[in-house]
Order: sequence, then C-alpha cells, then structure tokens
Amino acid sequence: MNRPAVSIAIGPTDPPPTLVEKAVLEAGAVVSGLDEAQGLIWVGDPEEFPDELPARVEWVQLPAAGVEDWFTAGIIARHPGVRFTSAAGAFAASVAEHALMLLLAGVRYLPEHLRATDWRQQDFFPHVGTLRGKTVTIVGAGGIGRALIPMLVPLGAHIIAVNRSGRPVTGPGIPSSVETISADHLGRIWPHTDHVVVAAPATPATRHLVGADELARLKPSSWIVNVARGSLVDTDALVVALSSGAIGGAALDVTDPEPLPAGHPLWKLPNAIVTPHDSNPPQLRFAAFADHVEANVKRFLDGAELLAPIDPARGY
Amino acid sequence: MNRPAVSIAIGPTDPPPTLVEKAVLEAGAVVSGLDEAQGLIWVGDPEEFPDELPARVEWVQLPAAGVEDWFTAGIIARHPGVRFTSAAGAFAASVAEHALMLLLAGVRYLPEHLRATDWRQQDFFPHVGTLRGKTVTIVGAGGIGRALIPMLVPLGAHIIAVNRSGRPVTGPGIPSSVETISADHLGRIWPHTDHVVVAAPATPATRHLVGADELARLKPSSWIVNVARGSLVDTDALVVALSSGAIGGAALDVTDPEPLPAGHPLWKLPNAIVTPHDSNPPQLRFAAFADHVEANVKRFLDGAELLAPIDPARGY
Repeated sequence: MNRPAVSIAIGPTDPPPTLVEKAVLEAGAVVSGLDEAQGLIWVGDPEEFPDELPARVEWVQLPAAGVEDWFTAGIIARHPGVRFTSAAGAFAASVAEHALMLLLAGVRYLPEHLRATDWRQQDFFPHVGTLRGKTVTIVGAGGIGRALIPMLVPLGAHIIAVNRSGRPVTGPGIPSSVETISADHLGRIWPHTDHVVVAAPATPATRHLVGADELARLKPSSWIVNVARGSLVDTDALVVALSSGAIGGAALDVTDPEPLPAGHPLWKLPNAIVTPHDSNPPQLRFAAFADHVEANVKRFLDGAELLAPIDPARGY
Repeated sequence: MNRPAVSIAIGPTDPPPTLVEKAVLEAGAVVSGLDEAQGLIWVGDPEEFPDELPARVEWVQLPAAGVEDWFTAGIIARHPGVRFTSAAGAFAASVAEHALMLLLAGVRYLPEHLRATDWRQQDFFPHVGTLRGKTVTIVGAGGIGRALIPMLVPLGAHIIAVNRSGRPVTGPGIPSSVETISADHLGRIWPHTDHVVVAAPATPATRHLVGADELARLKPSSWIVNVARGSLVDTDALVVALSSGAIGGAALDVTDPEPLPAGHPLWKLPNAIVTPHDSNPPQLRFAAFADHVEANVKRFLDGAELLAPIDPARGY
C-alpha cells in the first residue's frame, strides 16, 4: 500500500484502551494526538467531549449504540462539518448468539438433561427436537434480529421476520427465503410458527405482545425466547402456559419484573430458562466495540461508507 | 414443466411411510408400483430386498448411511446396471446441531445459570463467553464436521478442521477461511485452540485422542464437545481436568463407558454436560431420511448427480 498514513486519535483516556488502540492499528491507521488526527474514536461520556475539534477531524466514532444523550448535549449540532458514527449494531451479535443458544437448548431439551443423574436415553429421545424444517418467527428486525437470521439459516429453519413496515428484511447473510411480515399481521402467525424470538423494542405498543391469547395459540412444542425487554411478555400468563404445558418452554434473558425476585415460579419451572440479562456482558461489549472500530477505521481509510452513520436530521 | 412424469416405487412396506411418500411427491415424481418405476426408495432391511429388479429401475436409494451389510448380502453386486445411493450425510445435520448447542451452552455458562434460583447477574457476567473471534477445532471432517462448519461461520468463529490428509475441506457453506490441518499435526493445536469438537471415527488410532497431555495444554476456558464415540476421550483424565478447572468444561453426547453408569462423577460435575447419545433420535432420523429422499428424487428428475452414490469398487 502506497497511500499516505491516516491518523486516528483515541479520547479521552490516556493511554487509550488497549483493545481500541489495537483495533485502529489492525485497520492500518496510525494512532496520534487529536491535533494531527483525521478521525477521533471517543470512548468517554458526552460531558467530556471537546467543545471544539481541530479542522482536520472529519469523522468521530461514538461509543454508544443509542446516542440520544449526545444529541441532548448538543454535540452533533456543534460540529456540523464532522461525520459522526454510533456503535449501533455492534452489540447485537452477542445478544443474537445468546438467543440462538437459548432456543437450541430449549428445543434439544437441555434443561432436563442437566438434571439427569443416569442414562435416560429412551425417556429423552422423543423430546430432542431440531430447528431443521421448523419455522422461527423473529419479532423485531433491528440489529439483534438481523444478526440472528444468518445464524439460523444454516440450521435449516424457515424464518419469518416481523417488522413495522412488512418490507423485506435485507442485510449481510439474509437470504431472500426469509419471509417478512408487518407487525399488523403478527396475529396470524401464532398458530403456524414453531418458535418465537422476541427482539423488538419496548414501547407502549409492544407491551404484552405475547400474552395469554398468543400463548394459547402456539404449539405445545413451541419455545419462546425473549432477549428484548421483559415487558413484551406477560409474565403471569407465561407462568400459566409453562405450568400447564400449553407451550414447550420459555427462555428469558429479560424478565418483568427485573431483576426477577428470588422465589418467583420462573426459577423453578422445568421448562423455563432464565439468564439474568447477561447476554451482552461488559467484557464482550468492549470487544465488540473494538471490532466495530476496526471495521469503521478500515472503511474510513478506504473511503467507503461508514457503519452506523448518525443523521443529524433524524436524531440517531 | 412439460417433461414426462417419473415414477418412483417405495418398498417394502405397503402403504409406504407417510414422510417418504410425501418427499417423493414434493420432489415432483409420481409414486408407483415397482413394475412401472424408474427409481426405488428402499426403507427395509437387506434380507427383504428383491432378488431381481425390473429392467426399468435405474436407481435405488438405500436407507442407511453405512452400507456394509448391503455389500455383504451381495445386493450391490447382483444389480450391476443399477445406480445405488446411500443415506450418507443425511443424518449428520442433527448431530452437528447438537454439537453447536452443546458448545454454545458451555461457552455461555448455561449449566450454572440453570442451577440459579436468584438474579446472579454480577456473578455470571465474567463467565458468559462468545464464539465470536474464538478458534474452534473440529477433529474429523466427515459428514458431521462438514455440517457443523457452516453453522459456526456466522457466529464469527475461526475454524480449524482436522482430517487425515490435511487437504482443504470443501463443501456447501464451507468458506476458504476454514483452516485444514492433517491429523499428524494435531499436537500443535492444543495450546492455540479455544475449543475442540470431536467428530472423528473411532479407530485404534483415535482412541484417547484427547488424553491427559492434550487436556493439560488446553486453556482454562476451553470446552471439549464429543459427538463421535466415547473412546476418543480418556474419561478418567477428563474427570481430573474438569475437577481441577484445568479446562472450562466438557459436553458429551457419547461416553466411555457407555451407557455412563449412575454415580459416575460426570453426572455431578458442574462443568460437565452429558446427553445420552440422543443427538440423532429416531424421529429426527426418519425426517432426515425423507429430506434426503426428496433431494435425491429431485436430482434424479433433473438428471443431476445424485447425493451419496455408492461405488461398488470402493465398497461404500
């Protein structure tokens, strides 16, 4: 490569976080002070952000996926000539991986296996399922849903993605065989899907999206996985459905209430899996941000479109 | 489609198994008696196979992946003008899915989560891992190994496949980024890999392939998954490594001895997962065979190369 070196500053910590520095170097840029930099990777809070940036700085990478605080603090507006990118999408892969793990563990009857203390092959045989040929409905086609689809495809699942518009979900690793329906038509899905993964934002419209009626229409073998927010599932109705065997099971990384109190029936139901909102633990968030930085610095060097550009007009 | 109908017979049961009949019809063929058939799907044993086939029969699909009994019974030799196919590869997907489930459950600390009866987020955070950016070594690149690779790729794992020749593993969904090494060089891998999936045949050469020395060289976070045969892992050495925390854990669908007796330490170790050789239960085997039939009837109709052709000279 004979192109001139591109300098990237990392702020505000000095020395910068090792993983982030390594990511910038791996991408092929030089780590410099802010005065020489064309790009700035910011790992601090909005309050610490410099009031003025040197004129050479063309691009700022922020450390958060949701950047409402940066808009509120006026930082985007104060630097109209600078391109800002967020970390949107960077943290979705770990949550999607967790959702896949929960769904597979449920479908393949792992909780009951882990309680066994002898070789119960004949008992377990009829309960070991597969995702091959099964329909998995993913409610919410944001970062998590779009990261989960490519993980389910090689398992031979038929995938229905649910978004607001019903416009076909596209993205890297998402084949055209994925069916997309609009949230308005979600009501039709319950009797037909084998499993449901909830990955939609918590809004008044999505509260108790999975309630008693929906649970009653699922199959006795259906698993529900929730990696979004607890409020999307009606917990009391879920406990009833799990206790009666109306559905196969539920695997929840988020609960309502959260934290789930000791003594709650979900802790003891044999067909419930609870993980305490740890699908994206701090050490993985850090590593994921570093990967995002490496990808974006590479794109910056190549003059390619940056990942997760912030649109000042749109507000995110 | 304006091509003439192709007739396929299903034997020896009458009526034929519903799933198999449906597969033939889905593929676009007609189900007929043997006298009108160009192809025969055989779901019975070698002893029941007809001594003579009508001259129109060009192709026979056998129901087993390993067809040594069919050679021994002289059936392949007796029909030199007929193409035979086995079910090799058809049953690998379920075992590969099981291996993926076991590996993810281990890496994401599911066994400990399932024992929790309260919200232990801070305790669990440091133990929740990911396959993203991690190296997974798959020992054995037969049907199971080749089915597992495309499932691991979208999770962002780096994959090392180990086969006898060291020639690059290829196949549908296997990218060129997969590293292949020969079994002779497996010794070098142990300190470098994050996790190991054992999917190689049981032979005198692979007995105790994972023993005390190999376990000692793995990382304290490494998981071993065995979906092949129990004899490939030295059980006593494994119990020592799991008890001392020398490795992260082990997830075993096969054990030595098998069945694993009640009271064996593997039933109680918190970092061991045992499933009683049920990664490919009968009902999934049946469905997988039907899928294989559908794919092969389609290929037969299209004049395409059939899956799992039997070579009379090679003996499988």
